Amino acid sequence: AENRDTETVRTDLSELFAADISVVLKELDGPQAHYVLTQLDTEKGAEVLAEYEPDDRRELLRYFDSGEIARYVNILDSDDAVDLLKEQPIRIREEVIALVEDREQARFILDLLPYEPDTAGGLMQKELVRINVRQTVTECVEEIRRQAQDVEKVYTVYVIDDDETLLGIVSLKDIILAKRGSRIEQVYNQDVIYASTYDPAENVAELMRRYDLDALPVVNVQKRLLGQITIDDVVDVITEQAQEDIAAITGVSEEVEEDDSVWKITRSRLPWLGIGMIGSLMAAKFLGIFEHDLLLMVPALALFIPIIGSTGGNVGIQSSSFMVQILSDKSGISGGELWPRMLKILSVSVLKGLLIAVFVFLVTFLLLAHPLKLAMVVSISLLGVVLLSSFTGTVTPILLDRFGVNPSVASGPFITTANDFLGYSVYFGIADLLYHL
Amino acid sequence: AENRDTETVRTDLSELFAADISVVLKELDGPQAHYVLTQLDTEKGAEVLAEYEPDDRRELLRYFDSGEIARYVNILDSDDAVDLLKEQPIRIREEVIALVEDREQARFILDLLPYEPDTAGGLMQKELVRINVRQTVTECVEEIRRQAQDVEKVYTVYVIDDDETLLGIVSLKDIILAKRGSRIEQVYNQDVIYASTYDPAENVAELMRRYDLDALPVVNVQKRLLGQITIDDVVDVITEQAQEDIAAITGVSEEVEEDDSVWKITRSRLPWLGIGMIGSLMAAKFLGIFEHDLLLMVPALALFIPIIGSTGGNVGIQSSSFMVQILSDKSGISGGELWPRMLKILSVSVLKGLLIAVFVFLVTFLLLAHPLKLAMVVSISLLGVVLLSSFTGTVTPILLDRFGVNPSVASGPFITTANDFLGYSVYFGIADLLYHL
Repeated sequence: AENRDTETVRTDLSELFAADISVVLKELDGPQAHYVLTQLDTEKGAEVLAEYEPDDRRELLRYFDSGEIARYVNILDSDDAVDLLKEQPIRIREEVIALVEDREQARFILDLLPYEPDTAGGLMQKELVRINVRQTVTECVEEIRRQAQDVEKVYTVYVIDDDETLLGIVSLKDIILAKRGSRIEQVYNQDVIYASTYDPAENVAELMRRYDLDALPVVNVQKRLLGQITIDDVVDVITEQAQEDIAAITGVSEEVEEDDSVWKITRSRLPWLGIGMIGSLMAAKFLGIFEHDLLLMVPALALFIPIIGSTGGNVGIQSSSFMVQILSDKSGISGGELWPRMLKILSVSVLKGLLIAVFVFLVTFLLLAHPLKLAMVVSISLLGVVLLSSFTGTVTPILLDRFGVNPSVASGPFITTANDFLGYSVYFGIADLLYHL
Repeated sequence: AENRDTETVRTDLSELFAADISVVLKELDGPQAHYVLTQLDTEKGAEVLAEYEPDDRRELLRYFDSGEIARYVNILDSDDAVDLLKEQPIRIREEVIALVEDREQARFILDLLPYEPDTAGGLMQKELVRINVRQTVTECVEEIRRQAQDVEKVYTVYVIDDDETLLGIVSLKDIILAKRGSRIEQVYNQDVIYASTYDPAENVAELMRRYDLDALPVVNVQKRLLGQITIDDVVDVITEQAQEDIAAITGVSEEVEEDDSVWKITRSRLPWLGIGMIGSLMAAKFLGIFEHDLLLMVPALALFIPIIGSTGGNVGIQSSSFMVQILSDKSGISGGELWPRMLKILSVSVLKGLLIAVFVFLVTFLLLAHPLKLAMVVSISLLGVVLLSSFTGTVTPILLDRFGVNPSVASGPFITTANDFLGYSVYFGIADLLYHL
């Protein structure tokens, strides 16, 4: 029975795509997943490992010895191999690299290990097809045939000179369309877009999106060709960035998935809620100053605490997300000087504030029939709150960006709480002023 | 001088990439942009038009006559041609189609026009390279050479039978690596992932991301090959979806860009702010019920209005964004049954609510030295608010999704305002109960 089961596992699973096998394996515990994975042929197994999330993969690989890991690392694309190895403890990492059979692959990995993960160097793979500019198209086809066996997908053939300097690109389509006798220098395209190893991942994503590229060559300062970044890796970068932004805005502090434990999910949400709590408790303490004076004299002031809070929060979020959008648009060709832009943002805030103030004044005074003084306090405060929240919403992302923090955080609970607090100060400050005149 | 200027424009611009030319052109007014574009050769001009945002392109094309538009439409990829034509008034659209010189292109366009833009049919292009399964690799190369002239980038060659049914794919790399004499049926890959014309764009994006595809074939119900979707279009879909989600969460109702007018930017933000305003004014009206009774008796109740509001809002946003994440994960292999999942979400809420209630009780009673009764009202209310907001935050995205609305809206100002309102009701309800015992 054992043998037939094994046979079944192997045949059933090997017909699935790697991405689907990885989903199935996540439902199994470590030793079971190890068993199933070793039943697959090494190539499929490597593909499955490449599909795993980093955390799950580190957990799973604890059940593999270094020799087993080395067999997968041997045939993974070099960028995936490096990602996998970076998750391992240094001792295991070095054992595995020593055990990798393909010494070129081991050299690739050692080349790639030093790069930061969120740079072009950290995204690139060493596998690519290169061709010397002085070769002919016929030689090129032979060369591609020789090199392409190691490269999973051939997007583009890179044209280099004798010093490995990147000169241009030629697509497989162009090679197939070219006349047999023609020389590479006659058919290649010199307009090549490339990245440097230290370029941030988000710029790489923006370049590839803007110019509709399938693959982007990465060069060093001498423009020597070092590797390439393929579109599938960049799609993952774009997806992750979007998830990070949304997590920052909604105040979830670590990546959680549905199948995480109740405690882990709760824990991921507490830090931000805690900040909100502390902020609101400080607001309670602050409002307490007015408890025995203003609030007893004009209890109706309490009715407008919600509108002050929510307006500050909403306006702040809108301004900061607009600013984040501007900051993330690294097109290089900027929309103009700083001051005219600031003036425009200010105009939007003033207009927005005036419209809100007038509307709320009319509703409060005419429809809800509150006294003129209260309606004035509420609407003047709202104008102030809109201006202040626009200001903090605009400036905070710029500051965060300058200090290397994801500016989307500015739309999160921290800034929102600060804006609420600011709003209540303005409201009770103005009320204090007008009622004690 | 006129002629030299023209010559300069042509040489300077034609060396730039289309994506960059489109950025430069946006700085010019309509007639100027029209002039510059007509100075470029038609192919470059078409590329530039393909890079434009829909709104800007509709605006620009008002300065072109139908004959000029038709020259660009003639050489655009069919998917881009259809996008451009759908932005035009029907009269212009029909004139242009009648004037398109390449009659195959005109037929492609008429084929594609009926599909909804956010489906696989709306994303696909008709241009692709197809090969009959009974041909040899040598014939295939000839065939590719013949067909590839019309196809901008060849990602994959689709293998079909005599009825145009999709049988599989073969990559250019496989064709180059294959022995000259071999037959397509020996080298092609039958494990092909494909979409149907009616599949939603987000599913297409998820498929291509999950399986790292560069191109996805689109078939009809008889599995006849109708077109293909290329990765660059899907990168745009992913980027737009992320922007839409963030816009929905941050309550910006229409896509605005930095260079839009002050009034347009303001207008885009007013609807959501207005909803927030009206909600808060209703809350003011509601709280007014307690103005001459509870609030006069216990003015300190007002101090905790902010904590009730912000907790409801924050918890609601966290629950709904978690639910949105689950809903958008259309992996097909779901995390389990509905009820165990709901039980888990409930457990997280109860745990979160209890932790918050205990923390706030201790701070209010011990640190801020408020009376026991008030501390109890606040902490019991917070537990209630957390439970209620978790519930609405979980259920609203499911309902929105079922009715075909983007569930991210559930993290936006509308639901947040509703949650605030709910929170105040709970708070004053419980206060009313405990203080009138």
